[in-house]
Amino acid sequence: MTTSYARRPVFGKPPDTLVVEEPLEIRVNGQSIAVTMRTPGSELELALGFLYTEGIIRDVSEVASAKLCVDDPNVAEVVLRQHYAIESRNFYTTSSCGVCGKASIDSVKVHSHHDVSADPVTVRAATLSLLPDKLRQAQRGFARTGGSHAAGVFTAAGDLVLVREDVGRHNAFDKAIGTLLQRGEVPLAGHVILVSGRASFELTQKAWVAGAPVLAAVSAPSTLAVDLAAEAGITLVGFLRGESMNVYTRPDRVS
Amino acid sequence: MTTSYARRPVFGKPPDTLVVEEPLEIRVNGQSIAVTMRTPGSELELALGFLYTEGIIRDVSEVASAKLCVDDPNVAEVVLRQHYAIESRNFYTTSSCGVCGKASIDSVKVHSHHDVSADPVTVRAATLSLLPDKLRQAQRGFARTGGSHAAGVFTAAGDLVLVREDVGRHNAFDKAIGTLLQRGEVPLAGHVILVSGRASFELTQKAWVAGAPVLAAVSAPSTLAVDLAAEAGITLVGFLRGESMNVYTRPDRVS
Repeated sequence: MTTSYARRPVFGKPPDTLVVEEPLEIRVNGQSIAVTMRTPGSELELALGFLYTEGIIRDVSEVASAKLCVDDPNVAEVVLRQHYAIESRNFYTTSSCGVCGKASIDSVKVHSHHDVSADPVTVRAATLSLLPDKLRQAQRGFARTGGSHAAGVFTAAGDLVLVREDVGRHNAFDKAIGTLLQRGEVPLAGHVILVSGRASFELTQKAWVAGAPVLAAVSAPSTLAVDLAAEAGITLVGFLRGESMNVYTRPDRVS
Repeated sequence: MTTSYARRPVFGKPPDTLVVEEPLEIRVNGQSIAVTMRTPGSELELALGFLYTEGIIRDVSEVASAKLCVDDPNVAEVVLRQHYAIESRNFYTTSSCGVCGKASIDSVKVHSHHDVSADPVTVRAATLSLLPDKLRQAQRGFARTGGSHAAGVFTAAGDLVLVREDVGRHNAFDKAIGTLLQRGEVPLAGHVILVSGRASFELTQKAWVAGAPVLAAVSAPSTLAVDLAAEAGITLVGFLRGESMNVYTRPDRVS
């Protein structure tokens, strides 16, 4: 699977290895429901994670089969055990898109089935401060290209469970969730998700849907991310850079 | 217009001013065609820029009216002079979304009416190297929040024409294009567009549709961005940081 390749700029210094970006079409029961610009690799995990964090499936057991088209590796075909009807329209996503396909602003929200608020986990601030370095070390794509986002799932003790990279930050997140879903490890009670960029409304929503009590971001959160984290009872950490961090919600989990 | 507001983290150091993120629904002739997570401000410019870079309008003269809903400032209503039929579905976008609503991978591309390839402009490398600082100085939102993306339009001499900021990089881009569209300054022949983040396929496509011969990014391009720039005849500059830069396509324009 090619996730990056060398392309020497006409002039300029390295890095001259670029992150690969290709469209992936996700089909459910034969219907095209999304096109996302993604980095090749872990397509089925991406599709499963997308369906899960978008609230289309509640469990991997609802999936009868998931495979790439024989003729086109840029198409993921998912067959659900039950009938799935798209509500009179398709919906679409891109490399950093999570609210695509909603009929109106009222329906931007995806319902989470997990009471994250009650998660009793605590994480040491000193543990959190080590996570960005751990994520970076595990980001092979970023080291090569400087162009990929990452989502890492950690235990409360700071051990890396897995990291996934993609040109799109939502794809990286969905690949991580989809992989853990296949392993039967969702919901992510007691875990910390760290994203390499900013914390948006959409990533916070995905964290809630996946049942993660702590979401940390290397960069800034948005207002809506903080509002949603407060509503969900998620501990939202922003600007996590070495020992410096801002905790916006549920600081009782950070000791 | 509130584009950021102070929200002191429970603990942590500044910046404690967050970029505002709210959904904007774009309606065309009464039909909802997109919901994007955006920073409030310049909604009509965003809507116009979106319709233009998505290929729905070719000129601002096609727009009969554009206004915010009286009851809901998160809804932009655009009325076109001509009938507009969405092809049997809605399409949707988010803060960093540009290929939403495409029926399939084949239709991800938007047709540009501008022959950017023939643009004879040249830009001095020394001029390019000054642009990131100029963009940063004009980014009031970023200075406050650390959470907003920016798109700046410059002359070939390096003078800033305008900058727009948003929580979403595609929104920032569309706001800039929409504003210039209103002024009658599109296509952007002879101009340079600089984006604060990465250069994706979608941003490259928007630059092509807007007729800009040079697209520069502070961070990495993707493979598909380079491929599309080559096809369009756009000069694509990545990793533009001080005097360091990589030129991936059409280096003849950089002197």
